[in-house]
Formats: sequence, C-alpha cells, structure tokens
Amino acid sequence: MSQTFDVVVIGAGPGGYIAAIRAAQLGLSTACIEGNPYDDPKGEPRLGGTCLNVGCIPSKALLHSSHLYEDANHHFAENGISVKDVSVDPAKMVARKNAIVDKMTGGIQYLFKKNKVTLLKGYGAFVKQEGGLTQVKVTDKAGVETVVSAKNVIIATGSKARHLPSITVDNVVVCDNEGALNFNTVPKKLGVIGAGVIGLELGSVWRRLGAEVTVLEAMPAFLGAADAAIAKEAKKLFEKQGLKFELGVSIGDVKATKKGVTVNYTTAAGEAAKGEFDKLIVSVGRTPNTDGLNLEAVGVKTNERGFIEVNHDCATAVAGIWAIGDVIPGPMLAHKAEDEGVAVAERIVGQKPHIDYNCIPWVIYTSPEIAWVGQTEEALKAAGREIKTGQFPFMANGRALGMGAAEGFVKMIADAKTDEILGVHIIGAGASDLIAEAVVAMEFKAASEDIARICHPHPSMSEVMREAALAVDKRTLNM
Amino acid sequence: MSQTFDVVVIGAGPGGYIAAIRAAQLGLSTACIEGNPYDDPKGEPRLGGTCLNVGCIPSKALLHSSHLYEDANHHFAENGISVKDVSVDPAKMVARKNAIVDKMTGGIQYLFKKNKVTLLKGYGAFVKQEGGLTQVKVTDKAGVETVVSAKNVIIATGSKARHLPSITVDNVVVCDNEGALNFNTVPKKLGVIGAGVIGLELGSVWRRLGAEVTVLEAMPAFLGAADAAIAKEAKKLFEKQGLKFELGVSIGDVKATKKGVTVNYTTAAGEAAKGEFDKLIVSVGRTPNTDGLNLEAVGVKTNERGFIEVNHDCATAVAGIWAIGDVIPGPMLAHKAEDEGVAVAERIVGQKPHIDYNCIPWVIYTSPEIAWVGQTEEALKAAGREIKTGQFPFMANGRALGMGAAEGFVKMIADAKTDEILGVHIIGAGASDLIAEAVVAMEFKAASEDIARICHPHPSMSEVMREAALAVDKRTLNM
Repeated sequence: MSQTFDVVVIGAGPGGYIAAIRAAQLGLSTACIEGNPYDDPKGEPRLGGTCLNVGCIPSKALLHSSHLYEDANHHFAENGISVKDVSVDPAKMVARKNAIVDKMTGGIQYLFKKNKVTLLKGYGAFVKQEGGLTQVKVTDKAGVETVVSAKNVIIATGSKARHLPSITVDNVVVCDNEGALNFNTVPKKLGVIGAGVIGLELGSVWRRLGAEVTVLEAMPAFLGAADAAIAKEAKKLFEKQGLKFELGVSIGDVKATKKGVTVNYTTAAGEAAKGEFDKLIVSVGRTPNTDGLNLEAVGVKTNERGFIEVNHDCATAVAGIWAIGDVIPGPMLAHKAEDEGVAVAERIVGQKPHIDYNCIPWVIYTSPEIAWVGQTEEALKAAGREIKTGQFPFMANGRALGMGAAEGFVKMIADAKTDEILGVHIIGAGASDLIAEAVVAMEFKAASEDIARICHPHPSMSEVMREAALAVDKRTLNM
Repeated sequence: MSQTFDVVVIGAGPGGYIAAIRAAQLGLSTACIEGNPYDDPKGEPRLGGTCLNVGCIPSKALLHSSHLYEDANHHFAENGISVKDVSVDPAKMVARKNAIVDKMTGGIQYLFKKNKVTLLKGYGAFVKQEGGLTQVKVTDKAGVETVVSAKNVIIATGSKARHLPSITVDNVVVCDNEGALNFNTVPKKLGVIGAGVIGLELGSVWRRLGAEVTVLEAMPAFLGAADAAIAKEAKKLFEKQGLKFELGVSIGDVKATKKGVTVNYTTAAGEAAKGEFDKLIVSVGRTPNTDGLNLEAVGVKTNERGFIEVNHDCATAVAGIWAIGDVIPGPMLAHKAEDEGVAVAERIVGQKPHIDYNCIPWVIYTSPEIAWVGQTEEALKAAGREIKTGQFPFMANGRALGMGAAEGFVKMIADAKTDEILGVHIIGAGASDLIAEAVVAMEFKAASEDIARICHPHPSMSEVMREAALAVDKRTLNM
C-alpha cells in the first residue's frame, strides 16, 4: 500500500513550500514533491522554485552588487571618496549570488525537517482518485517511481519562461531569466526582448555593469500595468541611465552570428530594423507549468492559456485538489503564491482565511524601485470612479537628498467622496519597503486623511507617503 | 502702531516652520521669527533650526557618505568589485552635506513665500499682553528692534546642546553636535561623552571614516530608553564594528593638550582612568532654548528643568500663548514638533486635532538603524501588562541577504489577550522606513494577527515585520 498523507504539495517554490509548512503547522501529515533541475552540489533538487533559484532572490543579489559598482563609478566623487581602477568580476558577483541562493535553499530543507514535512524528490504526476484519496506518482532522477496518496493535493508547480517559436534559447548567447543571471563577462551590447519586470531588472543589472542595453518591446505602451504617471517617470529615468527602448516593434528573425546574435524587427513606424548584440535576453512573459502533471487522469481542467482553473478559494473543480501561485490565473508574484499557500492549508482544516487580491502589492526591482498596491488612475477612471490624487516628489525629502536617492515620487489615489485610499504608486529608492505601509492602510480601509494625520519619522523616505496623502487634500507642508 | 498678525511663531525649526505654514494654509495672517546663528552666505538667518542646520539632515548626509566609504573598504570584494587607493576627503564630504542643507533651508524660504508667511529676521522676546494681543519684540542682527502683535504666539525655540560645566566646548577640538559635523580631517582617536542618539550617530560616522572611537557614558545601561533586546543587540553590533564603550563612568577633568584633549574619568568599578583623544564630542543631552524670550513679561512658566509648561493641547497657562517641540517636555524629535505645530495651528481655528504620543516613532540613525514605536517589553511588564512577544531576524530574509544587510531583527509585542500591538522594535537596515508600517498599524489598533495576515512584498525587508507578527503566535513560516 502506498504511503498516505493528509496533504501532498507538488512543487517547493514559494507557494508550495509555504503551503506545506503551514499544513504541517496545522497538524496535517504533509509531503512536498520537488524535482527541479536546479541541483545543488550534492545532486539534490534545490528547494525554493524559480523565485529562489533563478528569480527574485538571485536577481536582487545582482542588483545590489551592480548598485555598489554604480556607486563607485558615479557617486563616490560627490561624497568625497576617491578610488582608482574600479573593475568588476562578474564571475565573483555571480558566485556571491549563488552562495546566497544556497543559503536560502538550504534554509528550506531545514524548515521542512523542523516542521516535519516529508520531502519527496522527483517529479509528481496524477494517477487517479480512489476512495477519497488522490494518488500521485513521484518519478525520481533515476527513473524510480513511487506512488503516494493524499486526502488533499495542492498543485504549486509555478511557471516557466515563455519562449518564442522563432528564437532558440541556449542560455549562453540567447538567454531567458536563468542564463541572464549567470553571465561570466559583461556583454558589450545586450539586447532584451520584452520590457516587463524581468527584462527591466536584468537589463538594469548589466547596464550598470557597463553593457549597452537595448530593450525591444512589442506593446506600444511602456509598463502598461503600472499607473501611467509612474510608467512615464520610469521610462524617463531609465533612459537617463542609458537604457534604450524601442516600443511597438514586431520581432522577426533572430540569428546566431559569429560574434553574437542579430535580431531583425519592424519598428512601430513599420520600418525594417536590425539589432546586433553580444547577448540577448528573451523575457516575453511566463507560462504555467503543467507539463507531465497528467491532469487528465483526475479531471483537473486548464483554461485556454494553460492555467489551472480554480474558484476564489483556489479549489479546482475536483474535490481534494487545489492549485496556487503562478499555475493559476492572476499576477505571478511570489507573495501572492505564499498567501494562497497559507490560505489553502487553512481551508483544508476548515478555517476561513480571506485574501484581498486588491491589496497584493506589485514590485519592480529596478533602480529606483517601483511598487504599487490597489488600482491605477486609468483603471479607476475607466470604471467610472470619481477620484482625487496627490503626488509628492522625493526631491523635497531631506533623507532622500542625504542618500543621493531623490528621484521619483509617491502618488496616492483616494475616492473623491469617502476619501478611502484606492491606490498607492511609488517610484523611488526603497519603494518595495515603503509600499508595506500603504498595504496595511488599504487593508484597514484607511482614508488619505488618516495617512496625512499619522506621524512619520523625520527624516525618512516614508514622509513622502504622508506628503502624498496631504497632497490629496492640496495641503502639502513641504512643497 | 505695531504690525498685527493672527499668529506669530518664534523659531523656524521643524516645529515652527510647519506651524507657520499650516496656520497660513488655514487663512491666518502669520509671521515667523528666526534669528539663528547659522547664517547663509548672504548673511541671512538659515531656516530649519537645529534639525536642518546642525542635526538630522546634515548627520544623515554624512552617514550616507561614510556608508559608501565603508562599502568600498569592506564590502566591495565580496561583491566582485575591486578598487584601489580608497581615500576620503572629509572637507568634500562636509561640502556635500552643506549643499544639501543649503538646498533644504532655501526650500523653506520658498515655502514661506508660497504660503504667504512673513519672515521676521531676528530674535524674539515677549513684551506684554494688552487688549487680547501679545506683543513680541524682534531684535535683528544690527540691534534694530521692532515690536509686532499677535492674537496667538507659538513658542518653537527648540533646544541646544547641554554643556558640562567642567568642559569648554570650542567646536574645534571639543565639540558638540555642531562642530562634530564639520571635521576637516578624520581624527585618529575620537572620544565621545554620552552614548545617546547624537553620540552614536556621529561616533558611527567618524568610526567608519577611520577614527578609533571610544564612547564614555555615565549611565550603567546602554540605550536605556530602547527595548532591552534591541539595546543588547545594538551594543553587540556596534562593538563588532569597532566602537568602544565604557558605561557607568563619572567624567572628571577634561584638559586641552598640545595634541588634543585628555579626559579623566572614574570607571564603573571605581578606578581612575584616562582617555587621550585628538577630538572630543560632548553629547550629554539637550536643554530647552528659552534664553532671552523674556517669558516673565507675559507670565509663561517653565518647570524645574527649564521646559515650558503646557497642557495636552500645547497651550501654556497664558491665553493666546502656545509652545511646541523641544522647548516643552517630551521626546526631542523633529516629527513630534511638526505634529504639534500642525495641531496648534488647527486648534487656533477651532479644529480638534489629536496626537497619540504613544504612536510617535523613535529613530536612531546608526548602521544598522534602530526604530521603535509604542512601549518596550520592560515598560509593559513594569506596568503589569500581560504580553506576548515575537521576534524575527533579518538573517532569514532573502532581500536582506541580497543587500548584505542581514544584521538585526524585528520584535513585536502584543497584548496577551486582545492581541493588540503594543510596541514594535526594529534594529536593522532601513528601520526608519520600516517603522512607518507599524505606526499605521498601531494607529488603527491592529492586532499582531492583522500584520501576520496582510500580504507583504517578496522579497522585501518588510517581510520580517510580518514574520515577527507570526512569531507572536509562534507560527513563523521562514524560521
């Protein structure tokens, strides 16, 4: 007889490992299946999924290192510091990044042991449902198959980089997010297809390290998901930093050359154009990972875009099978997956957790960072909401000036009548942390007046949030 | 007849200039008197008070510059960056700091014009009250006296460094906060008397730039106002950085020598000891600035420590005379003064603003930063409150590791029964901004469970706040 668990989670990314830990905390016997290709030096599958291995965490490590390099080259002199012979060793930078990833993935192994989560190494696939249990087959690297049974299965298989049919990704010259984290030299000319989060973050890293970066984007609008004021400011600042953008292009042939790669494309004006690059990053979105899951065996359905269909509680139409994170519709954000993981574990034991998807923050880790929560001005106007807005620049903040980080602003949007905060949009240093205050405020249905009246430490970047709230009522104190 | 205003504010520091702007916004004719000695190049008094001229803002500028120098010396190699001949020119660093101060003080001049606040240059002194008006005499630098009348006077004269009778401060070798911001060379051996906020911040600046720093503190406990867990961690981290502390000392003779200064003191164990330094910073607290105000003329009272006595609304016992900020009892924090300034202006027009003094955050801008809001564990226990606490380290946070800023932790304290958050204590990078979330949460009377359930962006330092909240309920997800 196969081993039986209360909960089997397929995938140990941020959604899956958190779901497994929460389930175990709630007293459920829990296993987590992981067979990803990011093997550690001992050949064990690394836990943490895309986020930890080839996504959020490694990119933030490189962003920090490249930020220091930029400081040395461009900001030391004004601070009275002189240095000579500034140089960068990308291999060393990448090694530091890898050490951080190792530490974090090792941490999840420890968390699984501490919380008594059984790690099943290999890839999971559904077999059938029988007697109220779902059978899942685990195939390990050696091809050995084991079947386990579970009262509840949580699918947390995440997503993978979308590849264009016309472009072969070798992760040496033509790279997706994985290869782009591991260049051993700084490319002289770097092409990026796709001006989304990944393209902008990794393009920024290599631009700071000295690459000449051109970003080709099919959409005519830049950062279409962001508030238009933020997108406009971001484009202006990134262009000032040296990133080049071509919007509204159609990508044609992509050909490997002796020296690198040539991208033929048609400009927004309809003209034929050509980009020649040493390396190319292809970041044109991500697709849900359902390959090999054998969903048909249990009747779990995917939609026309390949995402697993779930209800508001992350339950599929099949009893006892749930899905969370990038593999279901919604924003592909690690913290959204985590919150869904916690919520599903709690629902399994009968609790009634609630996720307010409107209060899930978005972050883009460029420099300056971009973060927002709630709705954009454009979306609210399109929905016919009457709103008022307030905006305040970091340039008028003493801490920002002191840190040499005075670019960007905070924009707050509130309901014209009730004053409830409907959206907060930040472009500026530390936006990823500043947004937390706005999320808490929105969860408590705060009015802009509330933020305007709450004491903020002086001097701090967070004062700009308060001034943006005061700006909603046209009574800024420092502008 | 003298010029008459609805409001005259004495002092253009953060409390005074904000009070004046808010009063003007509310339609009151407003003047602000400032005659501080921090003249700009044109001989005009610089606005912004201690905070802007010789406090918060310039110290943060130097902290940033010295942080970059520390990065170059100690953190570049691990990030794959090599540099040679790292050197620092303190004069240039100080010049950058001065440029930021100039920009900010100029900004207040602009704000006064924009808001139609009349700036009266000189020192203010009370003359008398007559016919419902208070007369204030303004004496300018040339000694010319002008008397103005006001329906309401707001005293916002701030504080000045406390000097010890036995120590002559020349602001060249023996300095208070003013001189310590303007060293043109890095002292080899720097003594600091007083391990308070100013001593720690400025001691940290010069330690990073290469000084050997010894801090002598009369109190037996380190950072007695902070939560004991934070104080303990801070001392450990600062000592690791190279700061030396001697607690519980009695300072004796301080003598100028050919090379610098000798401090004779008695150790906590009662032994005679001697410190020889190139420079000495005396930071033993601050006293309220009431010299020359001629308070007696209108009957405004000070307490035994020299602070002006006010009620909970910042009103003195004399009708039409208010006082805010460092010159009244309470924490000497710029943002507390600002909030009092806004509140008094609003009370003058009949509004009913409220300041919750328990929700005013504290910040110490060392590296890592320290920030807190609400009560310490020690204070709550002393008050007999039943509490539960949660703590989570930055070491287990991916963003902190990526930024090389994994020291410290967040500690949350909640009521044992209601779960209401009673205090949040942070030591870690960016604590001054992270605390904003906690302040908003406490203003909304949030429970620790609320923060535990609110989505926080991944990866961000703010996740540590959420984990600390989860720790209160013993259900951390990442530790």
